[in-house]
Amino acid sequence: MSSTSKSPDRATANNPIESPNGRIAVLTSHFTTTMSSEKESALAAAAAPPSADSPTIFDKIINKEIPAKVVYEDDKVLAFRDIAPQAPTHILLIPKVKDGLTGLSKAEERHCEILGQLLYTAKLVAKLEGLEDGFRVVINEGPNGCQSVYHLHVHLLGGRQMNWPPG
Amino acid sequence: MSSTSKSPDRATANNPIESPNGRIAVLTSHFTTTMSSEKESALAAAAAPPSADSPTIFDKIINKEIPAKVVYEDDKVLAFRDIAPQAPTHILLIPKVKDGLTGLSKAEERHCEILGQLLYTAKLVAKLEGLEDGFRVVINEGPNGCQSVYHLHVHLLGGRQMNWPPG
Repeated sequence: MSSTSKSPDRATANNPIESPNGRIAVLTSHFTTTMSSEKESALAAAAAPPSADSPTIFDKIINKEIPAKVVYEDDKVLAFRDIAPQAPTHILLIPKVKDGLTGLSKAEERHCEILGQLLYTAKLVAKLEGLEDGFRVVINEGPNGCQSVYHLHVHLLGGRQMNWPPG
Repeated sequence: MSSTSKSPDRATANNPIESPNGRIAVLTSHFTTTMSSEKESALAAAAAPPSADSPTIFDKIINKEIPAKVVYEDDKVLAFRDIAPQAPTHILLIPKVKDGLTGLSKAEERHCEILGQLLYTAKLVAKLEGLEDGFRVVINEGPNGCQSVYHLHVHLLGGRQMNWPPG
């Protein structure tokens, strides 16, 4: 898998990509994603920063154009399994309407409601997943944060002892 | 520094502790905190789970009974530097009124507003700190999440390339 620059989103999303011949292919080998390739992905994504309205892989997941293992959905939030899980439970939660939220750095006061809803939903999903022993919630912003899809998303990780520092 | 069991909160808070002779001492050597001691702290904290109303070190910071390097404060949120920073910028954001939020797992629908406010404030503080290259936001829940203070808090980390997985 050498197409880092072609698939900047590949490492953190439930995440089909377009192969060179234009065919949609679902990546199933993300378990081998390394820390460095994740960083490369994030840097590649940041090198061509999308506008707030640019569609991402998440729009296709929201629109059911590509499959995802959805674990929770309501009118505002969609939660689905990360295809490159970093823990036994690794779920992404996204706002179904992006509303300019390519990342947390773009948040305006009007976004407080959806931001709160995302965290509250993370708690609900953690309960659904049986994460009584605890979990970690992570939001990556920009290249230093390792963000690779520019549609705000919350990572929910659990099912193992998380370490410190958090990356 | 062998008093892990005496100071379960020491590793993630801006965090004076009581020394054996009862004197309040500000720890300045937290830079040496290891991953394992952080986990031990979290496990020690979880071994004696506090009630929702039990005060924590954060109450003393909110009440200005012990010092903290406050970087932002409004009527709902207090943000101050972590005394055991895991990145050049490492700030904790906490609700000034806990309202039962020992951790994210205790969130109820009424908490959505403060949860959104915490994330929005993290964005504001990231901007104040000049984290244009990105940052990471982390919430630890329970022993598996490495939570060591049972008053909901958001970690904001930046100023370096964050890695993956997030701990």
